[in-house]
Amino acid sequence: MSTHSFQAPKGTRDFFPADLAVRRHIEAAWRSASVDCGFDEVEGPTFEHLELYTAKSGEGIVNELFSFRRAGGENDYALRPEFTPTLARMVAARAGSLPVPVKWFAIPNMFRAERPQRGRLREFVQWNVDVCGTEGAATDVDVIACAILALERLGLTPKDVQVRLSHRVAIARMLGALGVPEEKTGEAMTLLDRRDKLKPEEFAARANALGLSADGVARFDLAARATAPLSAPLAELAGRIGIAESELHTLDEVRACAARAGILDWCAVDVGIVRGLAYYTGTVFEVHEISGAERAVAGGGRYDGLVELFGGPKMPACGFGMGDVVLANILRDRKLLPEDGSALLPRPDAFVISAGGEQAEAELPRLLMALRREGLHARTTSKATRNVGKLLGEAGKARARFAVILGAELAEGAVALKNLDAGTQETVPLAGLALRLRERSDSAR
Amino acid sequence: MSTHSFQAPKGTRDFFPADLAVRRHIEAAWRSASVDCGFDEVEGPTFEHLELYTAKSGEGIVNELFSFRRAGGENDYALRPEFTPTLARMVAARAGSLPVPVKWFAIPNMFRAERPQRGRLREFVQWNVDVCGTEGAATDVDVIACAILALERLGLTPKDVQVRLSHRVAIARMLGALGVPEEKTGEAMTLLDRRDKLKPEEFAARANALGLSADGVARFDLAARATAPLSAPLAELAGRIGIAESELHTLDEVRACAARAGILDWCAVDVGIVRGLAYYTGTVFEVHEISGAERAVAGGGRYDGLVELFGGPKMPACGFGMGDVVLANILRDRKLLPEDGSALLPRPDAFVISAGGEQAEAELPRLLMALRREGLHARTTSKATRNVGKLLGEAGKARARFAVILGAELAEGAVALKNLDAGTQETVPLAGLALRLRERSDSAR
Repeated sequence: MSTHSFQAPKGTRDFFPADLAVRRHIEAAWRSASVDCGFDEVEGPTFEHLELYTAKSGEGIVNELFSFRRAGGENDYALRPEFTPTLARMVAARAGSLPVPVKWFAIPNMFRAERPQRGRLREFVQWNVDVCGTEGAATDVDVIACAILALERLGLTPKDVQVRLSHRVAIARMLGALGVPEEKTGEAMTLLDRRDKLKPEEFAARANALGLSADGVARFDLAARATAPLSAPLAELAGRIGIAESELHTLDEVRACAARAGILDWCAVDVGIVRGLAYYTGTVFEVHEISGAERAVAGGGRYDGLVELFGGPKMPACGFGMGDVVLANILRDRKLLPEDGSALLPRPDAFVISAGGEQAEAELPRLLMALRREGLHARTTSKATRNVGKLLGEAGKARARFAVILGAELAEGAVALKNLDAGTQETVPLAGLALRLRERSDSAR
Repeated sequence: MSTHSFQAPKGTRDFFPADLAVRRHIEAAWRSASVDCGFDEVEGPTFEHLELYTAKSGEGIVNELFSFRRAGGENDYALRPEFTPTLARMVAARAGSLPVPVKWFAIPNMFRAERPQRGRLREFVQWNVDVCGTEGAATDVDVIACAILALERLGLTPKDVQVRLSHRVAIARMLGALGVPEEKTGEAMTLLDRRDKLKPEEFAARANALGLSADGVARFDLAARATAPLSAPLAELAGRIGIAESELHTLDEVRACAARAGILDWCAVDVGIVRGLAYYTGTVFEVHEISGAERAVAGGGRYDGLVELFGGPKMPACGFGMGDVVLANILRDRKLLPEDGSALLPRPDAFVISAGGEQAEAELPRLLMALRREGLHARTTSKATRNVGKLLGEAGKARARFAVILGAELAEGAVALKNLDAGTQETVPLAGLALRLRERSDSAR
């Protein structure tokens, strides 16, 4: 066996307990926000038929996929690079019998055969939230509010991250008002999407190639970088890029819904947000760290044609994906994660200690299992020592709430119960110990 | 796109909400049992270097693997068919700094490129529980007790499933006592492992080829099928297969530990259990449905050389894996799962209804988000109707605990709160509604 096989493949991660505790902490915020917002969890296969991905995104995506074929097999498969095709396939398969709207979330692992770099790995976890079956800004905002709820639960505020949103219909009208001919709308959107990746002169040359006048290019350039709080009047933004306010009117309803849901302070209009993929049809948004220094935390929007593309009926839909990698980087930068992820691991309710002697040694394994059967998290030492002081130290290191000491009191059917947070100790009958521990651990949580 | 790409690949599953609720129910039992028994959760990559698997199990395993190589890439990868190599690799990588014993669990998805059949899929979930660093029957029983704790939490009893166990050292000594030459011990164990897959005459022929006398073959045949409650004296079992009790003595300590932990009634000695893989070195066990009709629910044992094989130090280890597929079949057969998995989905705390009117319509989205921000699971209708009776019906179908009705009382800053379980209704001030709902939902849980 060569040395490299002793390591995780490039771009993948080993999650030791402290690492996984951080991931579970993030997933718990995702899951609880989804459930509270009325989404049901779904999951699909880790790999799909390769065609599921090439059909929507073209053959170009193949280079970014981990695809494979079994020896002697007939089918090409690919590790899933995103969840949306699986979701659309599942909705399409049961479109006749599912309650409308379909409100689903998923927390699948995803795979991209790209070069690993900051914020981008070959295997990562991505929260997906989708609504299928209802149109309108209220649904779009329902989905965005769910993302915000999870970010709030992780300790983030509008000072840390921002939902940058736009609306494809508004952008198309704006492009028309700027002088982009209708047949070049798609090309212009691609250019908007790539605005931060191109040099200024390259951007100008491509804007020019859209058939814009010199003035049009200048206004297009302004528009591509134009942002404003969603709470600000659209007239101001329209004036800045030299178009009529009415061209942006589809953003009005988004603002009204966001105001009613109380999430206006999280949101900004960003004319440059159009999302790369051609299948978006209405509201589009990305969640970004406020300085813009990191990759997008999340991205999504409305894609009304998607379910139909995967063999289902015509069905409006809206959703987003949020990855764990960039989010964890931001939480770490903001000190919203403990230095050592172990602090997020579940605390033991009881650390059971034998002070030595035949009775204690026989009682210990019985008590451990009895406590566990009562739903308590119970640990003990594997060391040979029966030095109670040393073992109390080990109990403290394990972050146990209580130490249960099996000593001389056992002869009277009792044990010493030490509250390791408060430092207090009392003698407690063995019968009913589980109940006492549970009451106290519950109240401490 | 051809028709097959609209379906999940053969042997994989789409988990619609009711399906995933069942899987999450099983995983919750696994996870809580693991945590209560003092195990920390870990996770690794979904795919590993192919060599990680071929090194331990030989090239033969390649046919059962989904392996792949990226176009232009240099490395062969495989979707993980088991978690133990990843675990051993991770322990080996940090052997010097991990606390001893390492007590880890994982709930990874696994992949086998086999023909799908009852109890066997190409993608499944497998609970893994492992202890590295401590020897002895107490550790073996600690691991077995954790499996039993999860089975208990799922509603199973010793009348439903049984832990069938044995000890490789006892079996080796037994084989010697039956007349198997030492160099054929491995071959004899393979034969024991395959006892149920071979026809009687085939089994006899192979037993004969081990160099046994006619009497030896007959006793070997008896031994291969010999089982006894772990609580029964070993002398009886030894007598039945014609060997001295002392040959089986390593099972004594297992029994003593199982008795102290209070799990003796779950356990039986089964001389035919040796586990196929050559790396087991001590106690071995499988969990089986009591009639033996299904595949094994779980399998594991002691494998003291494993961490060393993956580049780590010499380190004793013991663990097991339990898959979700066979377990769910047994739970379903025993009526321990609801007919419709939806019954396992989280219940909404509140279903918010507008009885119509401008104030109610404006209040509804605000209240929904406010309740969700308070950690309550709040839903509403997407229907246009404002018929409260119909909407109460929808709330009931959604299994909501309470309906919050925004009606005439809103003018006084109040709402109607209907307890959908009890059928009672009262008027409650809007301020403080979240607190009231939470108190009542908590007490109902």
